[in-house]
Amino acid sequence: MSAVVLGVGNASVLFKGLDISGGDAVTIIDAHDDCASAFDLSVLRGDGIFEATTVYDGFPVSLENHLKRLAHSAALVDMPEPDVDAFTDACQGVIDAYDGAEEAPMLRILVSRGLDPTTGIGVEAKRSGNGPLPPSVWIFLDGEGDGHSIEPITMATLTRGYPSDITSKAPWLLNGAKTLSYAVNQAMHRECDRRGVGDAVTTTTDGYTLECPNSSIVARYGDTYVTPDPRIGILNGTSQRELFAWALEEGKRTAYRKLPVDELRDADALYMTHGGWVVPVKELDGKAYAVDMEEIRAMNDAIHTGRTHDDALTIGPSGEYE
Amino acid sequence: MSAVVLGVGNASVLFKGLDISGGDAVTIIDAHDDCASAFDLSVLRGDGIFEATTVYDGFPVSLENHLKRLAHSAALVDMPEPDVDAFTDACQGVIDAYDGAEEAPMLRILVSRGLDPTTGIGVEAKRSGNGPLPPSVWIFLDGEGDGHSIEPITMATLTRGYPSDITSKAPWLLNGAKTLSYAVNQAMHRECDRRGVGDAVTTTTDGYTLECPNSSIVARYGDTYVTPDPRIGILNGTSQRELFAWALEEGKRTAYRKLPVDELRDADALYMTHGGWVVPVKELDGKAYAVDMEEIRAMNDAIHTGRTHDDALTIGPSGEYE
Repeated sequence: MSAVVLGVGNASVLFKGLDISGGDAVTIIDAHDDCASAFDLSVLRGDGIFEATTVYDGFPVSLENHLKRLAHSAALVDMPEPDVDAFTDACQGVIDAYDGAEEAPMLRILVSRGLDPTTGIGVEAKRSGNGPLPPSVWIFLDGEGDGHSIEPITMATLTRGYPSDITSKAPWLLNGAKTLSYAVNQAMHRECDRRGVGDAVTTTTDGYTLECPNSSIVARYGDTYVTPDPRIGILNGTSQRELFAWALEEGKRTAYRKLPVDELRDADALYMTHGGWVVPVKELDGKAYAVDMEEIRAMNDAIHTGRTHDDALTIGPSGEYE
Repeated sequence: MSAVVLGVGNASVLFKGLDISGGDAVTIIDAHDDCASAFDLSVLRGDGIFEATTVYDGFPVSLENHLKRLAHSAALVDMPEPDVDAFTDACQGVIDAYDGAEEAPMLRILVSRGLDPTTGIGVEAKRSGNGPLPPSVWIFLDGEGDGHSIEPITMATLTRGYPSDITSKAPWLLNGAKTLSYAVNQAMHRECDRRGVGDAVTTTTDGYTLECPNSSIVARYGDTYVTPDPRIGILNGTSQRELFAWALEEGKRTAYRKLPVDELRDADALYMTHGGWVVPVKELDGKAYAVDMEEIRAMNDAIHTGRTHDDALTIGPSGEYE
């Protein structure tokens, strides 16, 4: 038992079509131990996918939607299909081994493409196995890292450099996949530090709203909560769907659409959502926004206690994409 | 001694301003051993930089230019400044431990930002050290992986999704830095597999030539060898500079400029350069190009024997960027 729990996943049972040896879905190791090879594609190429959420008082927030999104990312990057039930078991194995004091530790699921088959170590592993090299999986629950906060934040818009119609034209850009290649996302956070703002909203070169480096953005206009349609090439936000579920339960309206940055700036209120949390935005590009902390606490409470969980499973964009 | 040598770098001596404890630049470990933490930013975020080249008969091709480019990448991603001399020593330590049969093994230098300071394991390491967490460094020499080939290849153009003027406007996109976040580069190679071509040349949305997913592109028009000016937001090719050095030694001309894709297709010959090799291109987007294998062998021979090394050090774009 520990406040930082690290599990190594068993690809044989975690992916469909790879069930070679069976066994437990996850093995807990000492979190201080190295577990990745220098010849693993996560280390060499940031070539893998991931998910992260909060485990609130033992409840993994939005876990089913996170694992469905992991499967979606796997399809976009041509990796084996994750077995959502087996991944759920593996996450529970990690959660069961946690006994830290932090009531809202961070759960992170890392899936690498595995050993690089073009390296000597990969060639050797391929020779000794049967079939292609399996993905590497690490799952950890961390109650000792930086905590979450719902303090109102300031934001700036930053261009992502792409036009809004690039995703369908160039699927190799992996827009909409949550890959381990987050160097640009990290650089955006350093740019925010330089500008003295808390986070960023990315935009297209033709003026549409995308997402935040590791969050989604939601705008409120009166009683309607709006977020960019993920089909523009962004992640389908898990906490954003929990927020939408809360709004619908409260009798409000929600919408997915292409959202011009100018309209984003005209919102009555802005919310950044990620990892099981809704964080209020008090400023975007120097413009101030009202913050209702009572609403924010109500949203987070509904999400953390699982009240919004079932409704969030069926929320998403629908109809033809504009 | 081994045919796959793995060294763990000592950040204290490999980076300027971090000289805390001294000691050897590199420690050789068993290449089968795990050496990266799941809490390392290379694994979590593809957050680091790298270089790769061939060690031909004991001679690390373009090593000085690779290490200078590593330092350039470090500056672009706000990492500590690598000490080029110390990195040279570390690479030599790895080369000295190699005794494989392959005469042209691949040398790879991986530099991660280090443990993630927002995780529990990072917080603990920060507490026990003095100052910020050091980068993680792994260097390997691999004589058992996939070999190099100078077989003529086919290519297709793929959009990178960016306009040609994005780099100076949005430095957070890290164009021109060789980061570990290569998921998109890997996806481009899978797209090439789907199309049945050997590799790709990336292009801007406004029709300019960029680079290949892990190579540079050179076009020949008569006696002039042309490559895109790296200031468009691409890597400053090391093997491309060796090729230019060869051309100048042979009395030919060279040029860096903005290169429209239409002009690239009009070339008399095309060359893909990477990791100490020049590879001829026999087809681009279905159009055939002449290949002179005698010239290709002469170029590679000049590069591998070190004949072009000194001249390549001073080659690069000059003057105002268009």
